[in-house]
Amino acid sequence: MKYYDVIVIGAGPSGIITGVTGKKENPDKSFLMIMEEQKGLVPCGIPYVFHDLDDITQNIMGPAPFISAGGEVIVDTVTSVDIPRKTLTTKSGETFSWEKLVFATGSAPTVPKFIKGYDLGNIEYVKKSYSYIESLVEKVKNSRDIVVIGGGFIGAEMAEQLAKDPDRNITLVEMEEHCLNRAFSSDFAAMADDHLTNAGVKLRCGCRVEEFLGTGSVEAVALQGAERIPADLVICSIGYGPRTELAAEAGLEITGNGTIKVDRYMRTSARDVFAVGDCSSTSGFITGNPDNIMLASTATAEARVLGYNLFCIHLLRTFAGTLSVFSTEFDGYAFASAGAIEETARRADIDYVTGRFEDVDRHPGSLPGAKKMIVKLIVTPETGRIIGAEIYGGKSVGELINLISLAIQKQVTVFELVSFQMGTHPLLTPAPTKYVLVKACEAAISMIRKRCS
Amino acid sequence: MKYYDVIVIGAGPSGIITGVTGKKENPDKSFLMIMEEQKGLVPCGIPYVFHDLDDITQNIMGPAPFISAGGEVIVDTVTSVDIPRKTLTTKSGETFSWEKLVFATGSAPTVPKFIKGYDLGNIEYVKKSYSYIESLVEKVKNSRDIVVIGGGFIGAEMAEQLAKDPDRNITLVEMEEHCLNRAFSSDFAAMADDHLTNAGVKLRCGCRVEEFLGTGSVEAVALQGAERIPADLVICSIGYGPRTELAAEAGLEITGNGTIKVDRYMRTSARDVFAVGDCSSTSGFITGNPDNIMLASTATAEARVLGYNLFCIHLLRTFAGTLSVFSTEFDGYAFASAGAIEETARRADIDYVTGRFEDVDRHPGSLPGAKKMIVKLIVTPETGRIIGAEIYGGKSVGELINLISLAIQKQVTVFELVSFQMGTHPLLTPAPTKYVLVKACEAAISMIRKRCS
Repeated sequence: MKYYDVIVIGAGPSGIITGVTGKKENPDKSFLMIMEEQKGLVPCGIPYVFHDLDDITQNIMGPAPFISAGGEVIVDTVTSVDIPRKTLTTKSGETFSWEKLVFATGSAPTVPKFIKGYDLGNIEYVKKSYSYIESLVEKVKNSRDIVVIGGGFIGAEMAEQLAKDPDRNITLVEMEEHCLNRAFSSDFAAMADDHLTNAGVKLRCGCRVEEFLGTGSVEAVALQGAERIPADLVICSIGYGPRTELAAEAGLEITGNGTIKVDRYMRTSARDVFAVGDCSSTSGFITGNPDNIMLASTATAEARVLGYNLFCIHLLRTFAGTLSVFSTEFDGYAFASAGAIEETARRADIDYVTGRFEDVDRHPGSLPGAKKMIVKLIVTPETGRIIGAEIYGGKSVGELINLISLAIQKQVTVFELVSFQMGTHPLLTPAPTKYVLVKACEAAISMIRKRCS
Repeated sequence: MKYYDVIVIGAGPSGIITGVTGKKENPDKSFLMIMEEQKGLVPCGIPYVFHDLDDITQNIMGPAPFISAGGEVIVDTVTSVDIPRKTLTTKSGETFSWEKLVFATGSAPTVPKFIKGYDLGNIEYVKKSYSYIESLVEKVKNSRDIVVIGGGFIGAEMAEQLAKDPDRNITLVEMEEHCLNRAFSSDFAAMADDHLTNAGVKLRCGCRVEEFLGTGSVEAVALQGAERIPADLVICSIGYGPRTELAAEAGLEITGNGTIKVDRYMRTSARDVFAVGDCSSTSGFITGNPDNIMLASTATAEARVLGYNLFCIHLLRTFAGTLSVFSTEFDGYAFASAGAIEETARRADIDYVTGRFEDVDRHPGSLPGAKKMIVKLIVTPETGRIIGAEIYGGKSVGELINLISLAIQKQVTVFELVSFQMGTHPLLTPAPTKYVLVKACEAAISMIRKRCS
């Protein structure tokens, strides 16, 4: 029985970053990472394997940084964990003992067992597995009519990428009124719908799938009502669920939404056992209620907290709760959100005002490449604190949402940001006179005052 | 004699934003803005008039937002101000009285009177005047050998734009070892030099201009040593000085570096008289010492503080001191800095460590359009506070520097930012596992620990 000071189960972003950070922090400790497959994928890069990247080999993410930090890796599957004895056993029959154990077992696509015909052939998923996606790429090549089910980020990005081949019919079916409805309020989500349509995706929003039709293999998707969409391939992207069977069997406490319960330092209900990333619980940054954020960015932030604090807490976690920060791009336009949107604020009974401004992301706006930019802030009226934002625009949206994300995490108010000292440049940002974020703060202040008068 | 509640002298970014913000805040008060020319320019857009923008009419900035907020505008020049009587007189002979007066008189290019031949013909400047730049555009069209003197932002941007016409010889002469040496330490500045060279600019760094040669009009620039550069046009860009003659004559206190002395709410030494933008004093955000920042972004931040607080202070200024935030782009690559760089920290006797990381600004890096990204942070070792940064990369650098700028202004430490929750997306940002800013924080933490051990 081989002993390691730390064993990490899983080699997704949270596993790798826990390993890299932990090993660098504790160079004298031995680290083992157990991965299910030899090759790994950049998870958020998966949709781009289907068009923008030349092929799947361009999207590899592996444990190289962990290995070069001095960690060891094996390809195997953990079949059981004995927490009191501090051991684990693998499929290949090996047993390891450990001082600290990290569950970084991730998440898996939700299978729509409630839809008749869900088990037909050619009904596929966006699994975070190299070998699986490799074969899905081949299936896509041989398909003409593809129906994507679920208009969340992954589904919408898949549909947009697949639609770049003009020989294919790509239909995206979304139950709610708009795509991306978890991350954007209806005004922004409607713009995303427009860009998806413009990119060649046939959208069916507000439609439920009634049944998958076919003999052996799927041939059509029947929607509520009479509509049938021909399909030689269906890609289901209706959500992901945490992979926690192993942890549950080992006796770890599981939360109501199925994740492994952890505290702010990723510590589970058992001493010396940790969970991090999609498989672990998170709590919302405003209410503290359990949340269900599954993002590589969130996972890596947690993994850094864990990596620094594996053997004892010394680098305090400053930001309370998990903040969801989303960004994507369709049809050459970027969409991003952070924290609360109008719908989530209403649902959580949080009083808010919005501050909205739009201009262009260059100055003057006549410069080549200039794109419209919209910033909408969600602000608590009594304190002026920013608790959420939605942005639309060009590539700079990707970092602008992170600026706002920092503002949310540092409890910055619109009253402060009005005198924010930013840098501006004609080729890179909006004009200083109309810096969109600051103008959105001004708009929020006006709304707050209207409330008071 | 006509009376206005508020008169603003000047219609650059600080004048316009003071006017717009102040008028919106005080809709019942009468506002007048006195501008020297009918048409105004986006100041930072001036270099792009020479190539990327089709022509100068694409770079107009005017008082339209102020007028539509209800302000009035006249084209005239103020010749004297009587502060005790609260009046002013203009060139056209009019007299106005006011309750509040704002100096937003800006800055003017420094003329190198210490260089022999400075007054020859075709020695020009980058003046923030529409009519002047309009005629400079014509002169450029008729010139083949152009020498730009001074490798600060404006000079370097001018040279890069002019060099886009392959029929011209563009030489940029800089006294110091590198261009952009005020905003970047030598490693980053050297990269900027390389990109300028790659863009076709002939660089002469570490060279002093000895004399301008010619009869009537300039014909060559003589450098220290024997070198002579033929020139049918010279553009001097060796700095700007505050325009404060009017304020000094009116009796306002002027600081040692020639700016109008103001407090944190832009209040001068005389009650009811304000100064804002390039003509007013600023103090550094770390030491509080007088600083000499002349940026439209800084000016507009000050102008918003003033606009909200013209009649009484009610929106407190949170961020202490002036933070310089620079960004630019040459040859398709962006450079930005905020706060202290290594040289300024050393000069101010500030102890610091650096944290540096480089990767690409997309993930995977094989995505089209991916560019190298470097982040270098300047951090105080005892507190871990970020006091400065330099960044290099693609367009997203423009907003990433603003994220760091917020971190500096909110006194964020590298220990906090390690668990920063950011959003990432393949097409928009670095990978979450290697988010360059967070990895630079980790590098800084390692440096701090090395110090302690």
